[in-house]
Amino acid sequence: FHPHTAKMWSCMKNFFTYETTKSVVVKSWTIGIINRIVQLIIISYFIGWVFIWEKAYQVRDTAIESSVMTKVKGFGNYNNRVMDVADYVTPTQGGSVFCIITKMITTENQVQGYCPETEKYNCTKDSDCTKYRHRPGGYGIFTGNCVPFKTNISMCEIKGWCPAEIDTIKTEPMNDVENFTIFIKNSIRFPTFNYTKGNFLPSITNEYIKTCNFNKEKDIYCPIFKVGDILKNAEQNFTQLADMGGVIGIMISWMCDLDKSDDECKPLYSFTRLDAMSQQNNVSPGYNFRFAKYYKMENGTDYRTLVKAFAIRFDVIVNGNAGKFNMIPTIINMVAAFTSVGVGTVLCDIILLNFLKGAEQYKAKKFEEVSDNPLDIQSNGLYHSQLSLRHTHFKSSDSGAFSIDHFS
Amino acid sequence: FHPHTAKMWSCMKNFFTYETTKSVVVKSWTIGIINRIVQLIIISYFIGWVFIWEKAYQVRDTAIESSVMTKVKGFGNYNNRVMDVADYVTPTQGGSVFCIITKMITTENQVQGYCPETEKYNCTKDSDCTKYRHRPGGYGIFTGNCVPFKTNISMCEIKGWCPAEIDTIKTEPMNDVENFTIFIKNSIRFPTFNYTKGNFLPSITNEYIKTCNFNKEKDIYCPIFKVGDILKNAEQNFTQLADMGGVIGIMISWMCDLDKSDDECKPLYSFTRLDAMSQQNNVSPGYNFRFAKYYKMENGTDYRTLVKAFAIRFDVIVNGNAGKFNMIPTIINMVAAFTSVGVGTVLCDIILLNFLKGAEQYKAKKFEEVSDNPLDIQSNGLYHSQLSLRHTHFKSSDSGAFSIDHFS
Amino acid sequence: FHPHTAKMWSCMKNFFTYETTKSVVVKSWTIGIINRIVQLIIISYFIGWVFIWEKAYQVRDTAIESSVMTKVKGFGNYNNRVMDVADYVTPTQGGSVFCIITKMITTENQVQGYCPETEKYNCTKDSDCTKYRHRPGGYGIFTGNCVPFKTNISMCEIKGWCPAEIDTIKTEPMNDVENFTIFIKNSIRFPTFNYTKGNFLPSITNEYIKTCNFNKEKDIYCPIFKVGDILKNAEQNFTQLADMGGVIGIMISWMCDLDKSDDECKPLYSFTRLDAMSQQNNVSPGYNFRFAKYYKMENGTDYRTLVKAFAIRFDVIVNGNAGKFNMIPTIINMVAAFTSVGVGTVLCDIILLNFLKGAEQYKAKKFEEVSDNPLDIQSNGLYHSQLSLRHTHFKSSDSGAFSIDHFS
Repeated sequence: FHPHTAKMWSCMKNFFTYETTKSVVVKSWTIGIINRIVQLIIISYFIGWVFIWEKAYQVRDTAIESSVMTKVKGFGNYNNRVMDVADYVTPTQGGSVFCIITKMITTENQVQGYCPETEKYNCTKDSDCTKYRHRPGGYGIFTGNCVPFKTNISMCEIKGWCPAEIDTIKTEPMNDVENFTIFIKNSIRFPTFNYTKGNFLPSITNEYIKTCNFNKEKDIYCPIFKVGDILKNAEQNFTQLADMGGVIGIMISWMCDLDKSDDECKPLYSFTRLDAMSQQNNVSPGYNFRFAKYYKMENGTDYRTLVKAFAIRFDVIVNGNAGKFNMIPTIINMVAAFTSVGVGTVLCDIILLNFLKGAEQYKAKKFEEVSDNPLDIQSNGLYHSQLSLRHTHFKSSDSGAFSIDHFS
Repeated sequence: FHPHTAKMWSCMKNFFTYETTKSVVVKSWTIGIINRIVQLIIISYFIGWVFIWEKAYQVRDTAIESSVMTKVKGFGNYNNRVMDVADYVTPTQGGSVFCIITKMITTENQVQGYCPETEKYNCTKDSDCTKYRHRPGGYGIFTGNCVPFKTNISMCEIKGWCPAEIDTIKTEPMNDVENFTIFIKNSIRFPTFNYTKGNFLPSITNEYIKTCNFNKEKDIYCPIFKVGDILKNAEQNFTQLADMGGVIGIMISWMCDLDKSDDECKPLYSFTRLDAMSQQNNVSPGYNFRFAKYYKMENGTDYRTLVKAFAIRFDVIVNGNAGKFNMIPTIINMVAAFTSVGVGTVLCDIILLNFLKGAEQYKAKKFEEVSDNPLDIQSNGLYHSQLSLRHTHFKSSDSGAFSIDHFS
Repeated sequence: FHPHTAKMWSCMKNFFTYETTKSVVVKSWTIGIINRIVQLIIISYFIGWVFIWEKAYQVRDTAIESSVMTKVKGFGNYNNRVMDVADYVTPTQGGSVFCIITKMITTENQVQGYCPETEKYNCTKDSDCTKYRHRPGGYGIFTGNCVPFKTNISMCEIKGWCPAEIDTIKTEPMNDVENFTIFIKNSIRFPTFNYTKGNFLPSITNEYIKTCNFNKEKDIYCPIFKVGDILKNAEQNFTQLADMGGVIGIMISWMCDLDKSDDECKPLYSFTRLDAMSQQNNVSPGYNFRFAKYYKMENGTDYRTLVKAFAIRFDVIVNGNAGKFNMIPTIINMVAAFTSVGVGTVLCDIILLNFLKGAEQYKAKKFEEVSDNPLDIQSNGLYHSQLSLRHTHFKSSDSGAFSIDHFS
């Protein structure tokens, strides 16, 4: 051979070698059984928890695309009028968030002008009001004058929409709301798997849908919900909620294992009160808002009807999580499982080298010493067993951290 | 030395030692090549998949902050009127969800009162209706009376907004909707990197924006979308959708590699039908909702115009994912890569100890035995090669689990 | 023993064995200290970063359920009228997204009919307009005629809501908006832990809430925000924003360590401009939308008031992240920590086998050779130390990849 070629060859020969760790096989019932039990626990954990429970062999998609349409049905008697959907639902578009108005304080025929305040700003003479001048009051901007409000009562005058609302009127909520039904149409899509599904299961017939009502025990896939049932499931009291207003969450959860039959990917409905704070805290409880309907007189003057509406707001919240078998996570997790089996060695080493009868002997076998002190090396070769024993002696104080080293 | 100091010194000396595994270097072409190939595959996987494809060296931010403004433009002829944005878009605020009304069933001049039902509740005498009394019907609450509806037809009477809507009227949708344009202004921010961007690319001039239309091939960054084009991209039929209503998703996806030039962080538009269920299922297809406009007569009586609107709802959904180089994930993944290279040993050990010529010899080198039975130890020392062979013999049935042990 | 039983017994005996790696203990101050320092760094990283900073011992819940209610208060003078909430806030429901209108271009008494365009489409004779016939213009559909608009100016005629809006009118924004207050009621729930909380801290009294204003230094838990303060915190100029409109994000962040006291789970408010693009880019800046109020004349003719509203839109965005101690992640991460300590061996091996005095000697101890060439084996046995030295010689070129092998 040419010397250069020889070197190349030798280099390659050295490259294509295989290194494996030298192992000590300990033939002992005690440590053998411990070892296998630890390995069994680790394997059980991986099979049970990681693979079966967490389904680590699947690719997951949580970025669910969802579209919600809602439709409320029912008629309510309120103030001797029959109210329908267009009257009591807002916003009207039938989206995932909507309010059902349960109580209204209506102030009709408001026009821009001057009128007395209706609350708190009592006065007897103009000078009582001058300090408020040009500052905002409860229902408008103060003019600084004191004007009669009711017999014997005067209030500071405001500029704004007049007459001002009288907020303190007690009115009854519309109790029919409890019997209203909410129809929810929910389509979902898992983009990763291009999987589309809706909350009308194929098993549901047209006839069924016309008559059914969601029921937590019997009709868990009926997409029509009675308001009263929703509140019951959310553990809320209708009377109180209708009186003060509140926010109810209708959660639709899609947990789908796409390795199973398509029929098993079903919605799960749950209900909770979202503004739970309102119950705990007395500061500004409930849910209400103001809106106005605008009209015009024949002469072109604007006037409006102001409504302070107490409402139950419903938020339909959709979340989902689909999984499907995929090679990549399966391989990664199997490798992790195999790797983790070796973790048991740490524990077994601690036991073997410290607590087992004959620990010194195992140490002597497991550890070989090499020192940068030439003298030590020699003695190492000659008095191997003796050295190991000594070694053992000192090491015992370091067993924890020490044992970890072996394992890598 | 003082004996205490000596002990301390010895203790420290024992602490500052280094343990490394004793290795067997196998000089065999077969296993050497297998070993290097397995290592190459693992390294390729890490470089190719983990680093290049998954960009594991980057910190990711998926908590995108987004603001969407929309503006619809176009005029539609409907019932001999010209409809503009304020007429056919709802809600009007130009947010990320809006409806374009394509068809309307209008019932004008409704007042609170008594009138016959318009559907299903035919009757000939009052007693036909008494069973419904005080119960909700299609358009109001039944009074229990039977009243004439049309010539020869009587219906049960309701109390509510009268006259009741006649839902069954066939009307044509507003076909001009197909030519309407939707202008979308989308600003995003990745809070982790404080990176802000908008969907108006710097390369887009004022002139261009005034005249362009989004086109999946040519103008993929034009923020103006023709309704017809959106439906075509979502593979929907305009006529059908305009007639029944539906929900279309406009997805804006921001996948940004912030290590690259700022210009490469661009929006990607895609379109899908969100209420796909409506197509599969005949139960309550499409999308419609009811709203009312309220008016007042001179004498103060309320009346309203009820509209049942069929609409195309558009949901602009923004999602994003930005990555930027960061030391911490780089180090973590490099360590994981190095660590995983060792996983190859498991496979190689299985081959080496079971399938290779001279497997017994390799086992003899790799495994050393130690037993808690003193007799075994002695024989171990004396008949090493023989023992190993025996060992080999029994082990062969356990090669899988066995080989895994070595590796940790 | 029966031979079958004996085999079984022997098989079991072989199964219940324990394998551990044979280790070389290097007694060298240099490498001993390096080894311990590397281990210390790895342990510090795990304790400091993974456990203390990232709280890896906790289960996390980021799927926060949230409900937001908002209420705006304040009165604005605009066009000699006092505007209240019902006038300037839209949508009115007090949800998490709402607009405060700051400027309006109002076009009153529009009816369906024919009128001249108001912009761009100047003409002198009908033939100038015929080319536009039946095509959409700025405010309606062109008829193809040329009609007088103002003295000396003629415009193409449109069919639509007339008179057409004159967009170019300069009006002042409503400056009182700066003093309006936004009251935010936010309830959250972490479903994993069934933990509910609100942004009214228990320490906040009824009295305090009535008078407080959010302040980034002093009153960081007051749920009432002055619009001016929000803009200041978001580094925006009120005058400019009120004139052009814009979108402001009010972020509420709940970072809760549920292992600590309940009192420490508090909201953190921050403010940013979401449509930041509007500032960078001159194309279609700001935020505005059109809506109409519909009226009826006595004869039943519809007319409307068209409003082009410039508004500040507020998006209340809630995000949260709660953690609580749990055994499973604690164990997993502790195992990972222990395992990672072994990673230090890679580095130490590289140093030990390449850069340390006596490297050849260490290699001789660490590596044992076995070859598939019988001649080599013999020589291996006989000239162990010599072989190792040779081995060392060639290996030195391969130290990186080489050293990695040991570690697994």
